[in-house]
Amino acid sequence: MTAVLALLEFAPGTGATTGFRLVDPAQPHLTVTDLAATRGDGIFETARVVDGRVQALEAHLERLAQSARMLELPAPTLPLWRDAINAVAVALAAAGVADGSIKFVLTRGIEGGQVPTGWVLGLPSPDFTRERAEGIRIVLLDRGYRHDVAHTSPWLLAGAKTLSYAVNRAVLREAARRGADDALFVSSDGYLLEGAVSSLLLRVGSRLVTPRVDIGILAGTTQADVFNWAELQGFTTGYELLTPGDLATADAAWLVSSVRHAAPVRAVDGVERPIDAELTARINAALDGRID
Amino acid sequence: MTAVLALLEFAPGTGATTGFRLVDPAQPHLTVTDLAATRGDGIFETARVVDGRVQALEAHLERLAQSARMLELPAPTLPLWRDAINAVAVALAAAGVADGSIKFVLTRGIEGGQVPTGWVLGLPSPDFTRERAEGIRIVLLDRGYRHDVAHTSPWLLAGAKTLSYAVNRAVLREAARRGADDALFVSSDGYLLEGAVSSLLLRVGSRLVTPRVDIGILAGTTQADVFNWAELQGFTTGYELLTPGDLATADAAWLVSSVRHAAPVRAVDGVERPIDAELTARINAALDGRID
Repeated sequence: MTAVLALLEFAPGTGATTGFRLVDPAQPHLTVTDLAATRGDGIFETARVVDGRVQALEAHLERLAQSARMLELPAPTLPLWRDAINAVAVALAAAGVADGSIKFVLTRGIEGGQVPTGWVLGLPSPDFTRERAEGIRIVLLDRGYRHDVAHTSPWLLAGAKTLSYAVNRAVLREAARRGADDALFVSSDGYLLEGAVSSLLLRVGSRLVTPRVDIGILAGTTQADVFNWAELQGFTTGYELLTPGDLATADAAWLVSSVRHAAPVRAVDGVERPIDAELTARINAALDGRID
Repeated sequence: MTAVLALLEFAPGTGATTGFRLVDPAQPHLTVTDLAATRGDGIFETARVVDGRVQALEAHLERLAQSARMLELPAPTLPLWRDAINAVAVALAAAGVADGSIKFVLTRGIEGGQVPTGWVLGLPSPDFTRERAEGIRIVLLDRGYRHDVAHTSPWLLAGAKTLSYAVNRAVLREAARRGADDALFVSSDGYLLEGAVSSLLLRVGSRLVTPRVDIGILAGTTQADVFNWAELQGFTTGYELLTPGDLATADAAWLVSSVRHAAPVRAVDGVERPIDAELTARINAALDGRID
Protein backbone atom coordinates (compact mmCIF):
# COMPACT_ATOMS: atom_id res chain seq x y z
CA MET A 1 0.00 0.00 0.00
CA THR A 2 1.27 3.46 -0.89
CA ALA A 3 2.16 5.44 2.22
CA VAL A 4 4.01 8.70 2.77
CA LEU A 5 5.53 9.61 6.12
CA ALA A 6 7.06 12.84 7.41
CA LEU A 7 8.77 12.98 10.80
CA LEU A 8 8.65 16.32 12.56
CA GLU A 9 11.85 17.64 14.09
CA PHE A 10 11.86 19.43 17.43
CA ALA A 11 14.23 21.70 19.30
CA PRO A 12 15.41 20.08 22.54
CA GLY A 13 14.26 22.15 25.51
CA THR A 14 11.54 24.31 24.02
CA GLY A 15 9.61 21.59 22.22
CA ALA A 16 9.25 23.90 19.22
CA THR A 17 8.99 22.28 15.80
CA THR A 18 12.02 23.08 13.66
CA GLY A 19 11.32 21.19 10.45
CA PHE A 20 10.43 17.83 8.99
CA ARG A 21 11.82 15.13 6.73
CA LEU A 22 10.23 12.46 4.57
CA VAL A 23 11.18 8.94 5.66
CA ASP A 24 10.33 5.34 4.80
CA PRO A 25 7.01 4.51 6.53
CA ALA A 26 7.76 0.78 6.54
CA GLN A 27 10.73 1.29 8.85
CA PRO A 28 10.41 1.63 12.64
CA HIS A 29 10.72 5.25 13.81
CA LEU A 30 9.44 5.07 17.40
CA THR A 31 11.25 3.74 20.45
CA VAL A 32 9.32 1.53 22.88
CA THR A 33 9.70 4.32 25.47
CA ASP A 34 7.73 6.86 23.45
CA LEU A 35 4.78 7.94 25.59
CA ALA A 36 2.51 7.44 22.59
CA ALA A 37 3.20 3.71 22.85
CA THR A 38 3.37 3.36 26.63
CA ARG A 39 0.61 5.72 27.80
CA GLY A 40 -1.40 6.82 24.75
CA ASP A 41 -0.09 10.22 25.79
CA GLY A 42 -0.49 12.39 22.71
CA ILE A 43 -3.02 13.81 20.30
CA PHE A 44 -3.97 13.42 16.66
CA GLU A 45 -6.08 14.60 13.75
CA THR A 46 -7.18 12.86 10.58
CA ALA A 47 -8.01 14.83 7.42
CA ARG A 48 -9.05 13.85 3.93
CA VAL A 49 -6.82 14.56 0.94
CA VAL A 50 -8.27 14.95 -2.56
CA ASP A 51 -5.84 15.36 -5.44
CA GLY A 52 -3.10 16.61 -3.14
CA ARG A 53 -5.31 19.13 -1.32
CA VAL A 54 -6.01 18.65 2.39
CA GLN A 55 -9.61 19.34 3.31
CA ALA A 56 -10.42 21.56 6.31
CA LEU A 57 -6.74 21.80 7.15
CA GLU A 58 -7.01 25.00 9.19
CA ALA A 59 -9.85 23.56 11.30
CA HIS A 60 -7.80 20.42 11.95
CA LEU A 61 -4.70 22.44 12.89
CA GLU A 62 -6.78 24.59 15.23
CA ARG A 63 -8.23 21.51 16.92
CA LEU A 64 -4.74 19.98 17.23
CA ALA A 65 -3.64 23.13 19.06
CA GLN A 66 -6.72 22.94 21.30
CA SER A 67 -6.03 19.28 22.18
CA ALA A 68 -2.40 20.22 22.92
CA ARG A 69 -3.61 22.85 25.40
CA MET A 70 -5.92 20.34 27.10
CA LEU A 71 -3.07 17.83 27.51
CA GLU A 72 -0.49 20.53 28.36
CA LEU A 73 1.67 19.48 25.43
CA PRO A 74 4.02 22.03 23.80
CA ALA A 75 2.00 24.20 21.40
CA PRO A 76 2.49 22.82 17.89
CA THR A 77 4.30 25.25 15.60
CA LEU A 78 1.45 25.39 13.09
CA PRO A 79 3.27 26.83 10.03
CA LEU A 80 5.74 23.94 10.06
CA TRP A 81 3.01 21.37 10.64
CA ARG A 82 1.07 22.90 7.75
CA ASP A 83 4.16 22.61 5.53
CA ALA A 84 4.74 19.00 6.53
CA ILE A 85 1.10 18.06 5.99
CA ASN A 86 0.98 19.72 2.59
CA ALA A 87 4.25 18.05 1.59
CA VAL A 88 2.79 14.64 2.45
CA ALA A 89 -0.42 15.46 0.57
CA VAL A 90 1.52 16.45 -2.53
CA ALA A 91 3.71 13.35 -2.34
CA LEU A 92 0.59 11.21 -1.97
CA ALA A 93 -0.90 12.70 -5.14
CA ALA A 94 2.43 12.30 -6.95
CA ALA A 95 2.33 8.61 -6.00
CA GLY A 96 -1.04 8.31 -7.72
CA VAL A 97 -3.33 8.48 -4.68
CA ALA A 98 -6.19 10.80 -5.66
CA ASP A 99 -8.31 10.04 -2.59
CA GLY A 100 -6.35 9.76 0.62
CA SER A 101 -6.24 10.52 4.28
CA ILE A 102 -3.60 12.15 6.42
CA LYS A 103 -3.14 11.45 10.09
CA PHE A 104 -0.96 13.82 12.09
CA VAL A 105 0.20 12.99 15.56
CA LEU A 106 1.94 14.85 18.39
CA THR A 107 3.13 12.85 21.41
CA ARG A 108 4.80 13.77 24.70
CA GLY A 109 7.93 12.07 23.38
CA ILE A 110 10.27 9.66 25.08
CA GLU A 111 9.53 9.11 28.78
CA GLY A 112 11.75 11.29 30.94
CA GLY A 113 12.72 13.50 28.02
CA GLN A 114 11.44 16.96 27.19
CA VAL A 115 11.17 16.57 23.43
CA PRO A 116 7.86 15.72 21.73
CA THR A 117 7.51 13.28 18.87
CA GLY A 118 5.47 14.17 15.83
CA TRP A 119 4.63 12.66 12.48
CA VAL A 120 2.37 13.02 9.46
CA LEU A 121 1.23 9.86 7.68
CA GLY A 122 -0.57 9.83 4.34
CA LEU A 123 -2.46 6.75 3.15
CA PRO A 124 -5.01 5.90 0.45
CA SER A 125 -8.61 6.16 1.67
CA PRO A 126 -10.73 3.07 2.07
CA ASP A 127 -13.72 3.02 -0.29
CA PHE A 128 -16.80 4.23 1.57
CA THR A 129 -19.15 4.26 -1.43
CA ARG A 130 -21.36 1.57 0.07
CA GLU A 131 -21.66 3.20 3.52
CA ARG A 132 -22.51 6.57 1.96
CA ALA A 133 -25.15 5.07 -0.34
CA GLU A 134 -26.73 2.32 1.76
CA GLY A 135 -26.16 3.73 5.20
CA ILE A 136 -24.86 2.23 8.43
CA ARG A 137 -26.42 0.38 11.33
CA ILE A 138 -25.46 1.86 14.70
CA VAL A 139 -25.91 0.99 18.37
CA LEU A 140 -26.13 3.40 21.29
CA LEU A 141 -23.46 2.72 23.90
CA ASP A 142 -22.96 4.31 27.29
CA ARG A 143 -19.73 6.33 27.50
CA GLY A 144 -19.92 6.22 31.30
CA TYR A 145 -19.51 9.98 31.78
CA ARG A 146 -22.19 12.53 32.60
CA HIS A 147 -22.72 15.24 29.97
CA ASP A 148 -21.14 17.90 32.24
CA VAL A 149 -17.88 16.05 32.88
CA ALA A 150 -15.73 18.38 30.78
CA HIS A 151 -16.62 21.17 33.20
CA THR A 152 -16.47 19.25 36.46
CA SER A 153 -13.45 17.02 35.74
CA PRO A 154 -11.16 18.42 33.01
CA TRP A 155 -8.48 15.81 33.83
CA LEU A 156 -10.69 13.23 32.12
CA LEU A 157 -9.75 14.99 28.85
CA ALA A 158 -13.28 14.66 27.44
CA GLY A 159 -13.30 16.65 24.21
CA ALA A 160 -9.56 16.25 23.51
CA LYS A 161 -8.59 14.04 20.58
CA THR A 162 -6.04 11.87 22.37
CA LEU A 163 -4.18 8.73 21.37
CA SER A 164 -5.87 6.90 24.27
CA TYR A 165 -8.53 5.40 22.06
CA ALA A 166 -8.70 1.81 23.31
CA VAL A 167 -12.32 2.43 24.34
CA ASN A 168 -13.16 3.88 20.91
CA ARG A 169 -11.88 0.62 19.43
CA ALA A 170 -13.71 -1.52 21.99
CA VAL A 171 -17.07 0.09 21.17
CA LEU A 172 -16.57 -0.83 17.51
CA ARG A 173 -16.03 -4.46 18.53
CA GLU A 174 -19.18 -4.25 20.68
CA ALA A 175 -21.09 -2.75 17.74
CA ALA A 176 -19.93 -5.58 15.46
CA ARG A 177 -20.95 -8.12 18.10
CA ARG A 178 -24.45 -6.64 17.95
CA GLY A 179 -24.52 -6.76 14.16
CA ALA A 180 -23.92 -3.04 13.67
CA ASP A 181 -21.33 -1.01 11.77
CA ASP A 182 -20.71 1.79 14.21
CA ALA A 183 -21.50 3.09 17.69
CA LEU A 184 -22.91 6.33 19.03
CA PHE A 185 -21.88 7.28 22.57
CA VAL A 186 -24.53 8.34 25.07
CA SER A 187 -23.72 10.13 28.34
CA SER A 188 -24.51 8.33 31.59
CA ASP A 189 -27.33 10.85 32.10
CA GLY A 190 -28.90 10.11 28.75
CA TYR A 191 -27.65 12.62 26.16
CA LEU A 192 -26.41 11.76 22.68
CA LEU A 193 -22.68 12.52 22.32
CA GLU A 194 -20.68 11.44 19.25
CA GLY A 195 -19.56 8.38 17.32
CA ALA A 196 -16.30 6.54 17.96
CA VAL A 197 -14.63 8.73 15.32
CA SER A 198 -17.51 10.86 14.02
CA SER A 199 -20.12 13.50 14.84
CA LEU A 200 -23.89 13.04 14.91
CA LEU A 201 -26.10 15.12 12.62
CA LEU A 202 -29.91 15.10 12.62
CA ARG A 203 -32.41 16.64 10.20
CA VAL A 204 -35.72 17.80 11.65
CA GLY A 205 -37.68 19.36 8.82
CA SER A 206 -35.52 22.13 7.39
CA ARG A 207 -33.33 22.22 10.46
CA LEU A 208 -29.98 20.43 10.98
CA VAL A 209 -28.89 19.84 14.56
CA THR A 210 -25.88 18.31 16.29
CA PRO A 211 -25.04 17.84 19.99
CA ARG A 212 -23.67 20.85 21.85
CA VAL A 213 -19.87 20.76 21.92
CA ASP A 214 -19.61 21.74 25.60
CA ILE A 215 -20.71 18.26 26.74
CA GLY A 216 -17.30 16.63 26.49
CA ILE A 217 -17.23 15.87 22.77
CA LEU A 218 -15.09 17.01 19.86
CA ALA A 219 -16.07 20.00 17.78
CA GLY A 220 -16.54 18.22 14.44
CA THR A 221 -14.62 19.77 11.57
CA THR A 222 -16.76 18.01 8.96
CA GLN A 223 -19.99 18.78 10.82
CA ALA A 224 -18.98 22.47 10.82
CA ASP A 225 -18.46 22.39 7.06
CA VAL A 226 -21.85 20.72 6.58
CA PHE A 227 -23.48 23.45 8.66
CA ASN A 228 -21.80 26.21 6.63
CA TRP A 229 -22.96 24.62 3.39
CA ALA A 230 -26.47 23.86 4.72
CA GLU A 231 -27.06 27.45 5.80
CA LEU A 232 -26.35 28.57 2.24
CA GLN A 233 -28.93 26.02 1.09
CA GLY A 234 -31.62 27.48 3.35
CA PHE A 235 -31.38 25.12 6.30
CA THR A 236 -31.25 26.45 9.82
CA THR A 237 -28.70 24.83 12.10
CA GLY A 238 -28.26 24.41 15.83
CA TYR A 239 -26.23 22.90 18.67
CA GLU A 240 -28.53 21.24 21.18
CA LEU A 241 -28.83 18.77 24.01
CA LEU A 242 -30.20 15.73 22.19
CA THR A 243 -31.63 12.48 23.50
CA PRO A 244 -32.24 9.04 21.97
CA GLY A 245 -35.86 10.17 21.56
CA ASP A 246 -34.69 13.02 19.30
CA LEU A 247 -32.77 10.51 17.20
CA ALA A 248 -35.81 8.23 16.94
CA THR A 249 -38.09 11.02 15.70
CA ALA A 250 -35.62 12.88 13.45
CA ASP A 251 -36.36 12.84 9.72
CA ALA A 252 -32.81 11.73 8.99
CA ALA A 253 -29.58 11.03 10.86
CA TRP A 254 -25.92 10.78 9.86
CA LEU A 255 -22.54 10.11 11.38
CA VAL A 256 -20.17 12.55 9.70
CA SER A 257 -16.39 12.39 9.75
CA SER A 258 -13.39 13.69 7.84
CA VAL A 259 -12.73 10.70 5.62
CA ARG A 260 -16.00 8.74 5.42
CA HIS A 261 -17.97 11.99 5.24
CA ALA A 262 -21.75 11.68 5.76
CA ALA A 263 -22.88 8.11 6.42
CA PRO A 264 -26.66 7.94 6.79
CA VAL A 265 -27.95 5.97 9.77
CA ARG A 266 -30.27 3.19 8.57
CA ALA A 267 -30.83 1.41 11.89
CA VAL A 268 -30.44 2.23 15.59
CA ASP A 269 -30.19 -0.67 18.04
CA GLY A 270 -31.68 -2.97 15.44
CA VAL A 271 -34.63 -0.73 14.62
CA GLU A 272 -34.67 0.26 10.94
CA ARG A 273 -35.14 3.93 10.13
CA PRO A 274 -35.48 5.87 6.85
CA ILE A 275 -32.46 7.42 5.20
CA ASP A 276 -32.53 10.60 3.16
CA ALA A 277 -30.58 9.49 0.11
CA GLU A 278 -31.06 12.72 -1.80
CA LEU A 279 -29.79 15.01 0.96
CA THR A 280 -26.97 12.57 1.75
CA ALA A 281 -25.77 12.77 -1.84
CA ARG A 282 -25.92 16.57 -1.80
CA ILE A 283 -24.00 16.78 1.49
CA ASN A 284 -21.31 14.37 0.26
CA ALA A 285 -20.97 16.21 -3.05
CA ALA A 286 -20.46 19.43 -1.10
CA LEU A 287 -17.89 17.76 1.17
CA ASP A 288 -16.09 16.19 -1.79
CA GLY A 289 -15.88 19.62 -3.40
CA ARG A 290 -14.24 21.37 -0.46
CA ILE A 291 -11.08 23.08 -1.63
CA ASP A 292 -9.58 23.85 1.76
CA MET B 1 20.76 4.88 31.78
CA THR B 2 21.05 1.10 31.67
CA ALA B 3 18.15 -0.46 29.82
CA VAL B 4 17.49 -3.97 28.51
CA LEU B 5 14.93 -4.66 25.81
CA ALA B 6 13.52 -7.91 24.45
CA LEU B 7 11.22 -7.93 21.45
CA LEU B 8 8.70 -10.74 21.32
CA GLU B 9 8.26 -12.62 18.05
CA PHE B 10 4.86 -13.72 16.83
CA ALA B 11 3.54 -16.20 14.30
CA PRO B 12 1.63 -14.43 11.51
CA GLY B 13 -1.98 -15.54 11.52
CA THR B 14 -2.39 -17.09 14.94
CA GLY B 15 -0.82 -14.29 16.96
CA ALA B 16 0.98 -16.91 19.05
CA THR B 17 4.31 -15.91 20.56
CA THR B 18 7.18 -17.89 19.05
CA GLY B 19 10.22 -16.46 20.81
CA PHE B 20 12.09 -13.29 21.66
CA ARG B 21 15.38 -11.55 21.01
CA LEU B 22 17.37 -8.94 22.93
CA VAL B 23 17.81 -5.70 20.98
CA ASP B 24 19.21 -2.21 21.50
CA PRO B 25 16.59 -0.19 23.46
CA ALA B 26 17.92 3.13 22.16
CA GLN B 27 16.96 2.22 18.59
CA PRO B 28 13.43 2.65 17.22
CA HIS B 29 11.54 -0.65 17.03
CA LEU B 30 7.95 0.50 16.45
CA THR B 31 6.39 1.78 13.26
CA VAL B 32 4.10 4.84 13.44
CA THR B 33 1.23 2.56 12.41
CA ASP B 34 1.49 0.35 15.49
CA LEU B 35 -1.86 0.52 17.27
CA ALA B 36 -0.03 1.12 20.55
CA ALA B 37 1.06 4.48 19.18
CA THR B 38 -2.06 5.42 17.22
CA ARG B 39 -4.85 4.17 19.53
CA GLY B 40 -3.31 3.18 22.86
CA ASP B 41 -4.63 -0.23 21.83
CA GLY B 42 -2.73 -2.68 23.95
CA ILE B 43 -2.03 -3.74 27.52
CA PHE B 44 0.87 -3.74 29.94
CA GLU B 45 2.21 -4.78 33.31
CA THR B 46 5.03 -3.40 35.42
CA ALA B 47 6.89 -5.56 37.94
CA ARG B 48 9.79 -4.97 40.28
CA VAL B 49 13.09 -6.80 39.82
CA VAL B 50 15.44 -7.37 42.75
CA ASP B 51 18.83 -8.93 42.03
CA GLY B 52 17.56 -10.45 38.80
CA ARG B 53 14.38 -11.90 40.32
CA VAL B 54 11.00 -10.62 39.15
CA GLN B 55 8.56 -10.10 42.02
CA ALA B 56 5.01 -11.43 41.74
CA LEU B 57 5.69 -12.55 38.17
CA GLU B 58 2.90 -15.13 38.04
CA ALA B 59 0.34 -12.61 39.30
CA HIS B 60 1.46 -10.11 36.67
CA LEU B 61 1.32 -12.73 33.90
CA GLU B 62 -2.15 -13.75 35.00
CA ARG B 63 -3.35 -10.14 34.96
CA LEU B 64 -1.80 -9.63 31.49
CA ALA B 65 -3.82 -12.58 30.25
CA GLN B 66 -6.95 -11.16 31.89
CA SER B 67 -6.43 -7.75 30.23
CA ALA B 68 -5.88 -9.53 26.90
CA ARG B 69 -9.25 -11.25 27.27
CA MET B 70 -10.96 -7.93 28.08
CA LEU B 71 -9.47 -6.28 24.97
CA GLU B 72 -9.93 -9.40 22.80
CA LEU B 73 -6.21 -9.53 22.07
CA PRO B 74 -4.57 -12.87 21.21
CA ALA B 75 -3.92 -14.77 24.44
CA PRO B 76 -0.27 -14.23 25.39
CA THR B 77 1.78 -17.42 25.28
CA LEU B 78 2.77 -17.18 28.93
CA PRO B 79 5.76 -19.59 29.00
CA LEU B 80 7.55 -17.56 26.32
CA TRP B 81 6.67 -14.25 27.99
CA ARG B 82 7.99 -15.68 31.28
CA ASP B 83 11.25 -16.64 29.56
CA ALA B 84 11.64 -13.23 27.95
CA ILE B 85 10.90 -11.41 31.21
CA ASN B 86 13.35 -13.54 33.16
CA ALA B 87 16.01 -13.06 30.47
CA VAL B 88 15.63 -9.28 30.76
CA ALA B 89 15.75 -9.49 34.56
CA VAL B 90 18.95 -11.52 34.46
CA ALA B 91 20.53 -9.15 31.93
CA LEU B 92 19.55 -6.19 34.11
CA ALA B 93 21.30 -7.75 37.11
CA ALA B 94 24.33 -8.60 34.99
CA ALA B 95 24.50 -4.94 33.99
CA GLY B 96 24.73 -4.00 37.67
CA VAL B 97 21.10 -3.02 38.28
CA ALA B 98 20.15 -4.57 41.64
CA ASP B 99 16.84 -2.72 41.95
CA GLY B 100 14.92 -2.44 38.73
CA SER B 101 11.55 -2.55 37.09
CA ILE B 102 10.28 -4.45 34.08
CA LYS B 103 7.47 -3.28 31.89
CA PHE B 104 5.94 -5.76 29.48
CA VAL B 105 3.60 -4.70 26.73
CA LEU B 106 1.32 -6.46 24.24
CA THR B 107 -0.26 -4.37 21.47
CA ARG B 108 -2.72 -5.14 18.69
CA GLY B 109 0.17 -4.62 16.26
CA ILE B 110 0.29 -2.72 13.03
CA GLU B 111 -3.07 -1.35 11.88
CA GLY B 112 -4.67 -3.64 9.34
CA GLY B 113 -2.36 -6.53 10.21
CA GLN B 114 -3.12 -9.58 12.30
CA VAL B 115 0.16 -9.80 14.19
CA PRO B 116 0.56 -8.36 17.71
CA THR B 117 3.58 -6.44 18.88
CA GLY B 118 5.18 -7.24 22.22
CA TRP B 119 8.19 -6.16 24.23
CA VAL B 120 9.80 -6.42 27.64
CA LEU B 121 11.78 -3.42 28.90
CA GLY B 122 13.97 -3.49 31.99
CA LEU B 123 15.12 -0.26 33.65
CA PRO B 124 16.69 0.79 36.96
CA SER B 125 14.10 1.78 39.59
CA PRO B 126 13.77 5.36 40.73
CA ASP B 127 14.66 5.81 44.42
CA PHE B 128 11.43 5.83 46.47
CA THR B 129 13.11 5.94 49.91
CA ARG B 130 11.66 9.36 50.70
CA GLU B 131 8.09 8.51 49.65
CA ARG B 132 8.15 5.31 51.69
CA ALA B 133 9.51 7.06 54.80
CA GLU B 134 7.82 10.45 54.73
CA GLY B 135 4.64 9.58 52.89
CA ILE B 136 2.79 11.18 50.01
CA ARG B 137 0.14 13.88 49.70
CA ILE B 138 -2.83 12.80 47.58
CA VAL B 139 -5.95 14.40 46.15
CA LEU B 140 -9.27 12.71 45.43
CA LEU B 141 -10.28 13.07 41.78
CA ASP B 142 -13.48 12.02 40.07
CA ARG B 143 -12.94 9.24 37.51
CA GLY B 144 -16.30 10.08 35.93
CA TYR B 145 -17.59 6.48 35.99
CA ARG B 146 -20.10 4.96 38.38
CA HIS B 147 -18.78 2.11 40.53
CA ASP B 148 -20.86 -0.45 38.59
CA VAL B 149 -19.61 0.50 35.13
CA ALA B 150 -17.56 -2.67 34.61
CA HIS B 151 -20.82 -4.63 34.78
CA THR B 152 -23.07 -2.28 32.80
CA SER B 153 -20.58 -1.16 30.11
CA PRO B 154 -17.69 -3.60 29.62
CA TRP B 155 -16.60 -1.77 26.45
CA LEU B 156 -15.26 1.01 28.71
CA LEU B 157 -12.53 -1.49 29.69
CA ALA B 158 -12.64 -0.45 33.35
CA GLY B 159 -10.38 -2.87 35.20
CA ALA B 160 -8.15 -3.66 32.19
CA LYS B 161 -4.58 -2.36 32.29
CA THR B 162 -4.50 -0.71 28.87
CA LEU B 163 -2.01 1.56 27.15
CA SER B 164 -4.71 4.27 26.97
CA TYR B 165 -3.41 6.04 30.06
CA ALA B 166 -3.58 9.71 29.01
CA VAL B 167 -6.11 10.30 31.81
CA ASN B 168 -3.87 8.58 34.36
CA ARG B 169 -1.13 11.02 33.36
CA ALA B 170 -3.50 14.01 33.42
CA VAL B 171 -4.59 13.29 36.99
CA LEU B 172 -0.95 13.37 38.08
CA ARG B 173 -0.60 16.83 36.52
CA GLU B 174 -3.80 17.88 38.31
CA ALA B 175 -2.42 16.49 41.59
CA ALA B 176 0.83 18.44 41.13
CA ARG B 177 -1.17 21.58 40.37
CA ARG B 178 -2.86 21.12 43.75
CA GLY B 179 0.46 20.60 45.55
CA ALA B 180 0.07 16.83 45.88
CA ASP B 181 2.19 13.87 44.84
CA ASP B 182 -0.48 11.47 43.65
CA ALA B 183 -4.18 11.07 42.98
CA LEU B 184 -6.83 8.64 44.15
CA PHE B 185 -9.76 8.07 41.80
CA VAL B 186 -13.31 8.26 43.16
CA SER B 187 -16.33 6.93 41.26
CA SER B 188 -18.98 9.43 40.14
CA ASP B 189 -21.25 7.91 42.81
CA GLY B 190 -18.76 8.44 45.60
CA TYR B 191 -16.71 5.27 46.10
CA LEU B 192 -12.94 5.13 46.48
CA LEU B 193 -11.34 3.32 43.53
CA GLU B 194 -7.55 3.23 43.00
CA GLY B 195 -4.57 5.48 42.37
CA ALA B 196 -3.30 6.41 38.92
CA VAL B 197 -0.93 3.42 39.05
CA SER B 198 -1.55 1.97 42.54
CA SER B 199 -4.06 0.34 44.89
CA LEU B 200 -5.51 1.85 48.07
CA LEU B 201 -4.98 0.10 51.39
CA LEU B 202 -6.51 1.18 54.73
CA ARG B 203 -5.85 0.00 58.27
CA VAL B 204 -8.77 0.08 60.68
CA GLY B 205 -7.53 -1.31 63.97
CA SER B 206 -6.18 -4.79 63.23
CA ARG B 207 -8.02 -4.97 59.92
CA LEU B 208 -6.60 -4.11 56.47
CA VAL B 209 -9.14 -3.24 53.77
CA THR B 210 -9.00 -2.33 50.08
CA PRO B 211 -11.74 -1.45 47.57
CA ARG B 212 -13.66 -4.35 46.06
CA VAL B 213 -12.18 -5.31 42.70
CA ASP B 214 -15.55 -5.67 40.97
CA ILE B 215 -16.00 -1.88 40.79
CA GLY B 216 -13.96 -1.35 37.64
CA ILE B 217 -10.48 -1.31 39.16
CA LEU B 218 -7.39 -3.48 38.81
CA ALA B 219 -6.82 -6.40 41.14
CA GLY B 220 -3.61 -5.17 42.79
CA THR B 221 -0.76 -7.68 42.68
CA THR B 222 1.14 -5.87 45.43
CA GLN B 223 -1.99 -5.37 47.52
CA ALA B 224 -2.62 -9.13 47.28
CA ASP B 225 0.90 -9.86 48.55
CA VAL B 226 0.42 -7.42 51.43
CA PHE B 227 -2.82 -9.19 52.37
CA ASN B 228 -1.15 -12.61 52.30
CA TRP B 229 1.65 -11.36 54.54
CA ALA B 230 -0.71 -9.43 56.85
CA GLU B 231 -2.89 -12.46 57.48
CA LEU B 232 0.19 -14.35 58.70
CA GLN B 233 0.87 -11.42 61.05
CA GLY B 234 -2.58 -11.65 62.62
CA PHE B 235 -4.40 -8.98 60.65
CA THR B 236 -7.81 -9.65 59.15
CA THR B 237 -8.31 -8.42 55.59
CA GLY B 238 -11.27 -7.49 53.44
CA TYR B 239 -12.49 -6.15 50.11
CA GLU B 240 -15.15 -3.49 50.67
CA LEU B 241 -17.04 -0.58 49.19
CA LEU B 242 -15.15 2.36 50.71
CA THR B 243 -15.95 6.07 50.79
CA PRO B 244 -13.90 9.22 51.44
CA GLY B 245 -15.31 9.07 54.97
CA ASP B 246 -13.67 5.67 55.47
CA LEU B 247 -10.35 7.13 54.32
CA ALA B 248 -10.71 10.09 56.71
CA THR B 249 -11.33 7.88 59.73
CA ALA B 250 -8.92 5.02 58.93
CA ASP B 251 -5.96 4.62 61.28
CA ALA B 252 -3.57 4.55 58.33
CA ALA B 253 -3.70 4.63 54.53
CA TRP B 254 -1.31 3.67 51.76
CA LEU B 255 -1.08 3.62 47.99
CA VAL B 256 0.65 0.36 47.12
CA SER B 257 2.20 -0.52 43.76
CA SER B 258 4.69 -2.92 42.26
CA VAL B 259 7.74 -0.67 42.17
CA ARG B 260 7.16 2.05 44.79
CA HIS B 261 5.60 -0.50 47.16
CA ALA B 262 3.72 0.95 50.16
CA ALA B 263 3.68 4.75 50.22
CA PRO B 264 1.89 6.03 53.33
CA VAL B 265 -0.69 8.76 52.75
CA ARG B 266 0.20 11.82 54.84
CA ALA B 267 -2.40 14.24 53.50
CA VAL B 268 -5.69 14.02 51.59
CA ASP B 269 -6.91 17.11 49.74
CA GLY B 270 -4.59 19.24 51.84
CA VAL B 271 -5.70 17.79 55.19
CA GLU B 272 -2.79 16.22 57.06
CA ARG B 273 -3.30 12.76 58.50
CA PRO B 274 -1.13 10.46 60.63
CA ILE B 275 1.09 7.85 59.00
CA ASP B 276 1.92 4.50 60.54
CA ALA B 277 5.68 4.48 60.05
CA GLU B 278 6.26 1.22 61.91
CA LEU B 279 3.72 -0.81 59.92
CA THR B 280 4.84 0.86 56.67
CA ALA B 281 8.41 -0.31 57.33
CA ARG B 282 7.23 -3.85 58.09
CA ILE B 283 5.09 -3.98 54.95
CA ASN B 284 7.91 -2.70 52.76
CA ALA B 285 10.42 -5.10 54.30
CA ALA B 286 8.02 -7.93 53.51
CA LEU B 287 7.55 -6.68 49.94
CA ASP B 288 11.30 -6.22 49.45
CA GLY B 289 11.83 -9.79 50.62
CA ARG B 290 9.42 -11.40 48.15
CA ILE B 291 11.23 -14.08 46.24
CA ASP B 292 8.73 -14.61 43.48
